[in-house]
Amino acid sequence: MGKTYVLGVGMTKFEKRPETPLEEMGVEALREALKDAQIDPKQIQAVYCGHAYQGVSAGQRVMVAFGFSGIPITNLENVCASGSCAIQEAFFAVQTGRYDICLALGVEKLSTRVGGPLAPGFDDLEDSLGLTFGALYALRARRYMETYGLTSEQLAKIAVTNRKNGYYNDKSSHGELISIEDVLNSRMVSDPLHLYDCNPNTDGAAAAIVVNEKIVKRIGGRPIEILASSLTSGKFEPGFIDMTFEDITWRSAQEAYEKAGVGPNEIDFAEVHDCFTIAEILRTEGLGLCKRGEMVRWIEEGVNEISGRKPINPSGGLLGKGHPLGATGVAQIREIVLQLRGEAGRRQIEGARIGLAHNRGGVVTGTEGAASVVTILRKP
Amino acid sequence: MGKTYVLGVGMTKFEKRPETPLEEMGVEALREALKDAQIDPKQIQAVYCGHAYQGVSAGQRVMVAFGFSGIPITNLENVCASGSCAIQEAFFAVQTGRYDICLALGVEKLSTRVGGPLAPGFDDLEDSLGLTFGALYALRARRYMETYGLTSEQLAKIAVTNRKNGYYNDKSSHGELISIEDVLNSRMVSDPLHLYDCNPNTDGAAAAIVVNEKIVKRIGGRPIEILASSLTSGKFEPGFIDMTFEDITWRSAQEAYEKAGVGPNEIDFAEVHDCFTIAEILRTEGLGLCKRGEMVRWIEEGVNEISGRKPINPSGGLLGKGHPLGATGVAQIREIVLQLRGEAGRRQIEGARIGLAHNRGGVVTGTEGAASVVTILRKP
Repeated sequence: MGKTYVLGVGMTKFEKRPETPLEEMGVEALREALKDAQIDPKQIQAVYCGHAYQGVSAGQRVMVAFGFSGIPITNLENVCASGSCAIQEAFFAVQTGRYDICLALGVEKLSTRVGGPLAPGFDDLEDSLGLTFGALYALRARRYMETYGLTSEQLAKIAVTNRKNGYYNDKSSHGELISIEDVLNSRMVSDPLHLYDCNPNTDGAAAAIVVNEKIVKRIGGRPIEILASSLTSGKFEPGFIDMTFEDITWRSAQEAYEKAGVGPNEIDFAEVHDCFTIAEILRTEGLGLCKRGEMVRWIEEGVNEISGRKPINPSGGLLGKGHPLGATGVAQIREIVLQLRGEAGRRQIEGARIGLAHNRGGVVTGTEGAASVVTILRKP
Repeated sequence: MGKTYVLGVGMTKFEKRPETPLEEMGVEALREALKDAQIDPKQIQAVYCGHAYQGVSAGQRVMVAFGFSGIPITNLENVCASGSCAIQEAFFAVQTGRYDICLALGVEKLSTRVGGPLAPGFDDLEDSLGLTFGALYALRARRYMETYGLTSEQLAKIAVTNRKNGYYNDKSSHGELISIEDVLNSRMVSDPLHLYDCNPNTDGAAAAIVVNEKIVKRIGGRPIEILASSLTSGKFEPGFIDMTFEDITWRSAQEAYEKAGVGPNEIDFAEVHDCFTIAEILRTEGLGLCKRGEMVRWIEEGVNEISGRKPINPSGGLLGKGHPLGATGVAQIREIVLQLRGEAGRRQIEGARIGLAHNRGGVVTGTEGAASVVTILRKP
């Protein structure tokens, strides 16, 4: 198995762009990634495109809009984790020698999505009974509060931190310098989650060029190595599921640590799936980056802030940057690459050498969800 | 790269089943494949699920309905070729040593699909101007007739042959013993294509268990080796495209022959994407199984019939068995496995040693389409 690298990354600004075709957003992200990698588009040997709700042939439509196709193009869907699966497939294809250069794309346009709200897209029993995403995470937040003494103010502090990180990210239109009071005064969505506890609906695209060592030796550039990528699905466990802990995230993380040969203590920072403020807590603990319940203290002490000991979501995360489903996983990889290169500007984490991306997707009745993907990258 | 095999196959009957949930059909196909492979479901290490229009998390929903999840599950979409991509990903994952045992699923329920006709699912310029699939293939049929002297009777003979093959396939509800006159007397859909020249709308699911040599040595069974799987997309070529020949099919076939180390002359039979009668001609020639224009003579002489020198679509194909998009590619593999094992009953091809599956998907304006997949299998 050869060493595998991300050589170039690109993304559109994450914002509402109802007038812009999906294909145009994909092309914009692709152009930036190609420029960043300094490779000719004709060198791309295969494309993996992740998205959830953009109809058939999304990857092909982007490539034809770009003006280059005739190569293998595969569309992947694992709901919110779709983009991470595109990265994973590109990684495996290059790592196993199938290709030298692959493109991972993530695209999603939610502002004009037909078909109503972000429901599962099928008859989900829990959803139809009112257990929407907001309600589900509100229940989890309430349970966590009861168990570990988490307060609404501490939850709000995550929203403040991530939106501040997003404020220093020129690819986010959702970054804001807000206060804990602003969060607590925003309208209640599902008690105890206020509007600012929820990630904003967004459009966007992101791209990453994944290559092997041969290409790195030839082109140079600023490659960042992919050490491991691990995917799993929720176990089918009717009955009690511990709402304060994510077994699916734990399992995918443990596998990734083992494959990468690094433990959670060696992870300098992480991008995690903070679809709600409580989600950042559940994921950070599920990844084993801190102990169960320890996030309460982390938040108080600012451990998860960019200046802290273990920064979480320096890009702004889903809360501070938005969450165009398929694009999110690829944009996470972009942030890790920029941070490890030392190119993250005002949100740069000092001395970061190893970064982790965690992405989650979907609800499936009777399980913890459809997918959890953990990707670990290292500065060579 | 280790040798890779299909150890078990299963499928639902392809028929209209509006009352049956998609998940139930998936489980039905999976159970049959597991029984055929004689493996315990808990041995499955990863799942690849192909479908085009079934909403998010289809693979996860099937596995949870079956009662076993918590493993990597990835959904793949390449329109009508989605199931072939599931087979391909399972093949690559096992071949490269990532897993010992993978499940490839294909599921699609078209009889209750919301969202209207089988349009591309996005704003396709050609489709919006009236160039639906039926119209597109009618134009291609007309051009082929002008170029090579093909007659409506010869086109009709393909419908007769494939529906006869389907008649001997207990998994088809669309098999019929019909005459050329029946085809010519059926209502005109898009001149020169009559109703019987078109494949029927169907629901269904199919499953295949893909394993490495280690598992074959342990379990035994009746394994069929996958020699190669090749995917490509249509080239972006504004302007003239030769409507009597498929470059996309040709390119994917040539790559598959090279990878497999076998030429078209060594292919004993093939399952090809006969969405319309003319499509069987274009694909058989595009695969290089006969020369351009030679299919006219083949049809007259019955070369493509089960008793002929190069049987095409012994399962009935899309015309004689129906076309539940995502399930089609996996069902093609099932047919090849049964034929190579000598288990195809009344539609058995004598002495078949190498079989080829060809699947196509999608329209993308300015190209020949979204995907073409060629898979070659051999009796060990």
